[in-house]
Amino acid sequence: MVKVGILGAAGYTGGELIRVLLNHPSVEIVFANSESNAGNPVSDVHESLVGETDQRFTSQLPWDQVDVVFFCFGHGKSEVFIREHEIPSHVKIIDLAQDFRLVGNHDFTYGLPEVNRLKIRSSQHVANPGCFATCVQLGLLPLAKAGLLTHDVSINAITGSTGAGQKPSATTHFSWRDNNFSVYKLFTHQHLHEICQTLNELRPASAPRVIDTLNEGFSSQGITLDFIPYRGDFTRGIFCTEVITLDQEMAADKVASLYREFYQDAVFTHYCEKEINMKQVVNTNKALLHTEVFGRKIVVTSTIDNLLKGAVGQAVQNMNLMFNLPEQTGLVLKASAF
Amino acid sequence: MVKVGILGAAGYTGGELIRVLLNHPSVEIVFANSESNAGNPVSDVHESLVGETDQRFTSQLPWDQVDVVFFCFGHGKSEVFIREHEIPSHVKIIDLAQDFRLVGNHDFTYGLPEVNRLKIRSSQHVANPGCFATCVQLGLLPLAKAGLLTHDVSINAITGSTGAGQKPSATTHFSWRDNNFSVYKLFTHQHLHEICQTLNELRPASAPRVIDTLNEGFSSQGITLDFIPYRGDFTRGIFCTEVITLDQEMAADKVASLYREFYQDAVFTHYCEKEINMKQVVNTNKALLHTEVFGRKIVVTSTIDNLLKGAVGQAVQNMNLMFNLPEQTGLVLKASAF
Amino acid sequence: MVKVGILGAAGYTGGELIRVLLNHPSVEIVFANSESNAGNPVSDVHESLVGETDQRFTSQLPWDQVDVVFFCFGHGKSEVFIREHEIPSHVKIIDLAQDFRLVGNHDFTYGLPEVNRLKIRSSQHVANPGCFATCVQLGLLPLAKAGLLTHDVSINAITGSTGAGQKPSATTHFSWRDNNFSVYKLFTHQHLHEICQTLNELRPASAPRVIDTLNEGFSSQGITLDFIPYRGDFTRGIFCTEVITLDQEMAADKVASLYREFYQDAVFTHYCEKEINMKQVVNTNKALLHTEVFGRKIVVTSTIDNLLKGAVGQAVQNMNLMFNLPEQTGLVLKASAF
Amino acid sequence: MVKVGILGAAGYTGGELIRVLLNHPSVEIVFANSESNAGNPVSDVHESLVGETDQRFTSQLPWDQVDVVFFCFGHGKSEVFIREHEIPSHVKIIDLAQDFRLVGNHDFTYGLPEVNRLKIRSSQHVANPGCFATCVQLGLLPLAKAGLLTHDVSINAITGSTGAGQKPSATTHFSWRDNNFSVYKLFTHQHLHEICQTLNELRPASAPRVIDTLNEGFSSQGITLDFIPYRGDFTRGIFCTEVITLDQEMAADKVASLYREFYQDAVFTHYCEKEINMKQVVNTNKALLHTEVFGRKIVVTSTIDNLLKGAVGQAVQNMNLMFNLPEQTGLVLKASAF
Repeated sequence: MVKVGILGAAGYTGGELIRVLLNHPSVEIVFANSESNAGNPVSDVHESLVGETDQRFTSQLPWDQVDVVFFCFGHGKSEVFIREHEIPSHVKIIDLAQDFRLVGNHDFTYGLPEVNRLKIRSSQHVANPGCFATCVQLGLLPLAKAGLLTHDVSINAITGSTGAGQKPSATTHFSWRDNNFSVYKLFTHQHLHEICQTLNELRPASAPRVIDTLNEGFSSQGITLDFIPYRGDFTRGIFCTEVITLDQEMAADKVASLYREFYQDAVFTHYCEKEINMKQVVNTNKALLHTEVFGRKIVVTSTIDNLLKGAVGQAVQNMNLMFNLPEQTGLVLKASAF
Repeated sequence: MVKVGILGAAGYTGGELIRVLLNHPSVEIVFANSESNAGNPVSDVHESLVGETDQRFTSQLPWDQVDVVFFCFGHGKSEVFIREHEIPSHVKIIDLAQDFRLVGNHDFTYGLPEVNRLKIRSSQHVANPGCFATCVQLGLLPLAKAGLLTHDVSINAITGSTGAGQKPSATTHFSWRDNNFSVYKLFTHQHLHEICQTLNELRPASAPRVIDTLNEGFSSQGITLDFIPYRGDFTRGIFCTEVITLDQEMAADKVASLYREFYQDAVFTHYCEKEINMKQVVNTNKALLHTEVFGRKIVVTSTIDNLLKGAVGQAVQNMNLMFNLPEQTGLVLKASAF
Repeated sequence: MVKVGILGAAGYTGGELIRVLLNHPSVEIVFANSESNAGNPVSDVHESLVGETDQRFTSQLPWDQVDVVFFCFGHGKSEVFIREHEIPSHVKIIDLAQDFRLVGNHDFTYGLPEVNRLKIRSSQHVANPGCFATCVQLGLLPLAKAGLLTHDVSINAITGSTGAGQKPSATTHFSWRDNNFSVYKLFTHQHLHEICQTLNELRPASAPRVIDTLNEGFSSQGITLDFIPYRGDFTRGIFCTEVITLDQEMAADKVASLYREFYQDAVFTHYCEKEINMKQVVNTNKALLHTEVFGRKIVVTSTIDNLLKGAVGQAVQNMNLMFNLPEQTGLVLKASAF
Repeated sequence: MVKVGILGAAGYTGGELIRVLLNHPSVEIVFANSESNAGNPVSDVHESLVGETDQRFTSQLPWDQVDVVFFCFGHGKSEVFIREHEIPSHVKIIDLAQDFRLVGNHDFTYGLPEVNRLKIRSSQHVANPGCFATCVQLGLLPLAKAGLLTHDVSINAITGSTGAGQKPSATTHFSWRDNNFSVYKLFTHQHLHEICQTLNELRPASAPRVIDTLNEGFSSQGITLDFIPYRGDFTRGIFCTEVITLDQEMAADKVASLYREFYQDAVFTHYCEKEINMKQVVNTNKALLHTEVFGRKIVVTSTIDNLLKGAVGQAVQNMNLMFNLPEQTGLVLKASAF
């Protein structure tokens, strides 16, 4: 049994992680840490767990009793936490925030199994990818690796309200959001950083560099990712389209083959011949991909559940890899479908 | 032209009132008062007004320039405001809060035109009914007047999220409320007060008293209103059912006649032969009613838009009466229908 | 391994059953029968199964290869099917339609585990309860058994659109149903039959009979169930309130005790001290109950997922009982929660 | 009074047109034609009109009693109707279908007032633009006229379910569409035709031709419109983004000025300094536009109500122009806002 501690356990990802791990056959949740809710039953906050657990939140951090901890903090807090705490070296860390996703002065592996499966297996520390970042990368990886990203890429991605977290705000107010539609962080969403990083790592030398416009602006040499995030009036899920312009036409079945080959070992990421829709993946850890070709343009559609493959599910997938468990353990979830 | 001032103009009802009055052919909005938003364009807060008005919120109260003011404060603040301000006697007041709905030490008329049309016409001060209270009363008035409320009445009423106001909260968070359902204030909703008051005023001497269980509890002599409010996962509208038990059976068409007669002069309240649904009235000032009979039981369905007939629309209807304008002026609104 | 055949496998309940059974550790789906879809991949119709199964629908009925079949037909077809087919006696049957729920000229056991657990274990044929019927009965059973149903009961129940099945219609059209609300089958819903049957079986001799008003009308001796079904603008779930009038007051904690005791052996049905909301159970096989007391009135709230505890989940629960598997096997499902 | 006949009056646009025209101060609806509903009250089909009209559908076509007819037929039927009927020359025609939007062997003017206001005023026959086409064109017109469309344009547009009409289908089934997201007619939506036509008419000789890829494919000389339509899980509204790449950078305020100038005479189309969201225009005839600039890229957001500015509202706006009425007459509609 893998012994697990959860930090920041009272938030949305914390709750989803508990919901997943309670049914994971090889996991024991040793502690669910939350300062503000210490002493309260977990099912008081994550109310869909009524009848499934009597566990209570704790303010304790019994490091010696766990094999791995998940950081479900808000962005920026993971780094501070690590600086301020002496975490024993035997304790593996999976961080769901964005603090360690970019290569830097740390030893975290970027936890996208479709790219880093082997490296994750031997990692002590894993930085779990962002939700948009996961969906967009899965849509682009096969083309990036094949050196086919040679022009600016148009990315449109719609996310559910759970992506905005637990704290109520004007744009997650039901009266505002229901039956509404809008964009935010136009061309400036922070997930661009990690997407650029992966695409650049993967590209062959012949292909142009992907510019991280957040750092460099739009005038550097290379190609840009023109990323438009939208607020959808649904709770769970991300649906993306990516439009790629090739230097020359490519047959549709050849494009499809690229995707099928790239993902042949992926257990949750599937290429579909037919058009896809978001509810095919909601409440599962799956990612679905579909492509169509028009002249020199490829249109990719990709979709995931933002809280699962886009956060908690992928984190557990990474944990499975880090502990040499079959990758799907505890993650074969029934789609809600409706 | 009726010259209007709006207080508490930055909230939900304030915004809806401005949206209605901007198109009212006999009204000029002289000021829209909001302390917190003073100086800001009205369309910055009520963003659907972009392109329709350049008006700005003000912290001023130019009493001498207006004929009537609408109080769109939160409950409890209207009474305080009146105590603390010297409002010139020529200024009529329409209060949308619950502060003056119950008979007491004040001169406000209860503004339900279906009951008090004549009195409202000559009133200087009107207390606008609550949203649930409007929908429930319209469903019960004909039976109350006929002395047919002789047993406890079962009332179930579902409301949209705008009923909970502008301030974000846990139960108006999109992630929680979307596709969810729940009850609140079971048997204890404050609108029971005004419903009981009207029903008791209307009942013939032969009929039993309706107990205000919030004041007296459940053991007094009389009949009770068993009122269950629900949080619906929609934004606008109230849908109610009222089940009434008669002393003896009554033909369905006789029940229908009671309703048609009672509402023959009502301009916005209609009895329907066919079953009704809520979107027939959303974004209008209409109330629809339908009845069915089973043995000694009558099932009434009633529906309104909570922000219009349940608040702002009825307030403007009252204003029209108070200024001798045709009752429908400015209130013939296109249903959104979808 | 229990070998399973599914008939009517292309409908909503058929799909949900496949989604559940694919992850059931002790089940093998031998065939998924559908005349109209014979030969097509199951995941073409139940598109959320993409990547999880390569199974195809079949028009075959290989009785000798299965231990149990599930009937996912529309109402009325199960009876016809049994008349027209020779089903080997070793094949157990679980019927999800209403054809055999009422005691009659057949050997089907009514499959509500909270009442008939022991009998189901030894049954060859089980009639799975209706969705509304499950939710309402779970709300009333403890009171019925205690002989406390002595006055007419007021039942209000809101259901999701999946309750109306797969075939598109006017009232399941998104443009009509979204943000709408309405009632249907007022006081005449067919589930009244089975609810009355169970309540009458359970009541002590001292308690009055519950009248099946669909058969007898409203003037017989006994008490009635005043049942109002509503169409909710959500996809999954049922939320009910039941108001019971007692002969005399009863302490709230005594009511709570009745419920806790009655359900002490139930693995999916839980009594909650706190108020409940529907998304606590959506996408799970759980039922949650809560009670409040006002004078001589008890208000019960009960909630289930209509496709799981209200249909497929309960059917699998029954299968587990019939094959001596632990009752929860394959049914510990992650709530979607949002 | 303009005397109006409506053909195809029982569909979605027919209903919306009646809802608008009933409150139009200068219009009398002489007949609402529907073969299938002849004799039935209009409010039986368009149920939100209960209490507002006693009119019935007719199968008659009293041409001599009307000044103008609206064709609310499905696409393709208008042309057939005109061929098969002798419509008196004094009767003006406004066609809401796509049959006469493209220049050809007919005398219909393309009814986009922002481009053709003067021509519409003197037209006898007007072809009302498509919903997507309206929203996309309004977003691109100022740039097209300025000759700034010199590279392929990326267009993403999300529409509500009412865009798919009244007939229930798999993708308008509430159970499927609610909380779901998907694309359709990728790069091949028929509105591309009319968008290309207008942009090419408007462009200066120096700017490249916009290729109608539906006719010519993707390899011609010129620029393409890469148009991705999405099915949104809301009922009313269209929200678009258009990404334009310039030859060289342009200051954001200069872009804004282009838009403000182009639309200075438009009564319903407004340029906004602030970000926009769809519910600002739902249930109104307004179009809102916003722009942001990143390097050589302009991102335009544009939004309309698909049934109003995208269909019926614009048709009435055209009627107002054709009859020399003020353009806003009958179209100052209260936004639903929530």
